[in-house]
Amino acid sequence: MKTLDMYPVSVADTIPVLESDDLKARPDQVIETSGAIHSIRNLSGLAFVIVRTFRGTFQAVLEGKVLEDLKGLQEGDYIKLVGKVSTNTQAKAGVEVHAHTVNKIGGPSEPLGMKLSGKLTMAPDTILNERVLTLRNELERARFKIQEGVVAAFREYFSDRRFTEIHSPKLVEAGAEGGANIFSLDYFGKKAFLAQSPQFYKQFMVPVFGRVYEVGPVFRAEQHNTSRHVNEYTSLDVEMGYIQSFRDVMREEVGFLRYLVEKLQKDYAAELALLKVELPTIDVTVPSVSFKDIKTAVADKYKRKFRDQYDLEPEEEKLISRYAKEEFGSDFVFVTNYPWKKRPFYTMRSTDDPEYTEGFDLLFRGIEITTGGQRINEHAMQVQAMRDKGLDPSQFTEYLKLHRYGTPPHGGFAIGLERLTMKLLGRDNVRDTTLFPRDVDRLVP
Amino acid sequence: MKTLDMYPVSVADTIPVLESDDLKARPDQVIETSGAIHSIRNLSGLAFVIVRTFRGTFQAVLEGKVLEDLKGLQEGDYIKLVGKVSTNTQAKAGVEVHAHTVNKIGGPSEPLGMKLSGKLTMAPDTILNERVLTLRNELERARFKIQEGVVAAFREYFSDRRFTEIHSPKLVEAGAEGGANIFSLDYFGKKAFLAQSPQFYKQFMVPVFGRVYEVGPVFRAEQHNTSRHVNEYTSLDVEMGYIQSFRDVMREEVGFLRYLVEKLQKDYAAELALLKVELPTIDVTVPSVSFKDIKTAVADKYKRKFRDQYDLEPEEEKLISRYAKEEFGSDFVFVTNYPWKKRPFYTMRSTDDPEYTEGFDLLFRGIEITTGGQRINEHAMQVQAMRDKGLDPSQFTEYLKLHRYGTPPHGGFAIGLERLTMKLLGRDNVRDTTLFPRDVDRLVP
Repeated sequence: MKTLDMYPVSVADTIPVLESDDLKARPDQVIETSGAIHSIRNLSGLAFVIVRTFRGTFQAVLEGKVLEDLKGLQEGDYIKLVGKVSTNTQAKAGVEVHAHTVNKIGGPSEPLGMKLSGKLTMAPDTILNERVLTLRNELERARFKIQEGVVAAFREYFSDRRFTEIHSPKLVEAGAEGGANIFSLDYFGKKAFLAQSPQFYKQFMVPVFGRVYEVGPVFRAEQHNTSRHVNEYTSLDVEMGYIQSFRDVMREEVGFLRYLVEKLQKDYAAELALLKVELPTIDVTVPSVSFKDIKTAVADKYKRKFRDQYDLEPEEEKLISRYAKEEFGSDFVFVTNYPWKKRPFYTMRSTDDPEYTEGFDLLFRGIEITTGGQRINEHAMQVQAMRDKGLDPSQFTEYLKLHRYGTPPHGGFAIGLERLTMKLLGRDNVRDTTLFPRDVDRLVP
Repeated sequence: MKTLDMYPVSVADTIPVLESDDLKARPDQVIETSGAIHSIRNLSGLAFVIVRTFRGTFQAVLEGKVLEDLKGLQEGDYIKLVGKVSTNTQAKAGVEVHAHTVNKIGGPSEPLGMKLSGKLTMAPDTILNERVLTLRNELERARFKIQEGVVAAFREYFSDRRFTEIHSPKLVEAGAEGGANIFSLDYFGKKAFLAQSPQFYKQFMVPVFGRVYEVGPVFRAEQHNTSRHVNEYTSLDVEMGYIQSFRDVMREEVGFLRYLVEKLQKDYAAELALLKVELPTIDVTVPSVSFKDIKTAVADKYKRKFRDQYDLEPEEEKLISRYAKEEFGSDFVFVTNYPWKKRPFYTMRSTDDPEYTEGFDLLFRGIEITTGGQRINEHAMQVQAMRDKGLDPSQFTEYLKLHRYGTPPHGGFAIGLERLTMKLLGRDNVRDTTLFPRDVDRLVP
């Protein structure tokens, strides 16, 4: 038998210096690090190179014969750099690196055609069209670093509260939300749809794990191209069993939002400062008002008439948020007991007035970021509710197994990740906080 | 102005008793908890009820007038229970609850039609068809509790190593892997595809964050219906910049696998014991052999001829794993330097022999669970590689922006979550470890 060359692969026990903050922890040490050249400033016999790392930037100082290494290098090149860390209160990160050697390890094959340092100045559409390039900008990428923190906070909070994470299918036989806003495709000769939400599946999991959450893509074939809609987004979904009322669900959402703001302040301070973001304050209590009451109160206070008595117009959401800020001092406000007419067939109706529901929205800075509520958990009630909505229960055989075989009282909510990030960062267009947005006109990059 | 009724929503500061382990921490306390009735055993003047909680089960003891509460209750009903926790070394969890009151809060509207306690005895297909019901079985759900741990380990490990989590679009203009195995759909009059992998997008993010990971669904329109394939699965994706060679990528994968085994042993011991799972041992080193060498060695040792000189047949993967166990004492083995002919166009070719690549697979207990490697990061080389594969570079304008505008040396890998879980748990069919599997014949539930 031939001898076999075997190369054991060992665990990597060191992490290269990846982030600007790592430098602060290594004063006077010689380090090796890598990054992209953000900008170069040449003085006589001296050059300052700003290097973009995994997170943040740092200043490298090149003097003497090291300047030879810089020849031919330009913004956008990738380098490996060996040097000594020195404290310098003038430098942005409080430290700089006095380079010993600089080596190019990659770079553009042609000029970038745009300046990626500082604030991008091209048209918003160009920024989106050139995402492959523009995400490398320090301010653009900071939004998505913060978005990572939003998702991490969501998982940490609900894991700590004993919710189980699930992964439900996105190819489905029927839509949860109904309506025409659904993408369809051929699935081996059958018609399949792209899930508009994991609604049915998260409900299926209530009798299994009691309380569950999911982070995943959802798809909405909406034709309208507004600043607050995209056709694919990341949904943060929660479903919890054993509730007394939908207020238990709202309480968990308040807990999450508080945890989120704390976490971002603690772990993403650099990005928040870079983007000059002012995070909302969120108290241990968030105001909650009924749909009927707030509609009247807002119309009275701001002398506006609204036409749709069953829903909130975008302008109305803005005024409700304004009302909450002025009257209750809160950036967040729950609107509860939405009309049954405008809520999905699985929403629990209110006992005292069945024209209204145990459903709520959460408004944040003028926009709805959450829809939630208690679900129907009894079989006969769910079948009746389908009929009341003009739906045929025989089309929902699988879904109704949930009720047929029993499920405890439960409710939940969903938050659109990109929309929440947009409002947290004070942006106006959800595309700004969607990594690679999909809309009616946009399928690339 | 009308006075508005405002209901402040406060953070929920207590978690109900949700898991059997919580009971152990509360000896002699009166607690309130909820769950499903798993089984009822009636003796004279005494009843034992096994209650299924969020995690695990516990025994409730009912005596005297509390037995009245049990009347009409059956397996599958949901109850709220108040009682006192007592230590009892005979009971499964070491504790039991002496019930004071039991109240039904939900339940089936008709008989379950199957027994959900103990090991399910129906046909495998029935278990899948009746997932809404069968997932409530303690053994079935334990697999998905462990799967939660696999994903958590993945995120924790790579976050600790400074990788950034991303969320890339699943509706795409072109497939990353090419070929016919791709689902297409109408997207507002244009043709769109469902992403076969986040390959292009994770590569796009290397110049942005340096190192990234993603957990998300991928879609493969494969016609063949085997025990190791489903048409939608969860992909654990990693891409890392600033590597010296593909061995850096393998080192990070070894680190993750070690962390995974440790985490499961620590946090999922109850489920592992319930399923009688023996986790693999994974040393700080994992053997790595070249494709060419191991092909010869296995053919020699086991006296088998294999026909495909460019790929590994399933039987060959099994024998390579057997070889690794016998010769190196390892459940895992890397096979490196796959032939260029069988790898995608973005794979880096080996310098010393361009017919082979800097690509690898990881085999675990007889099956490939990972494909990875170093990627081409130079523009001219990538354009040439596309031509060599018979592809038209003008069809890859967006992807080639990555190389055109520069990217450091990088590589990565992907692990199929459901397949990894299957092998960890010693199952034979990936459907057993897929929450709601999708295959050629299965789109529901």
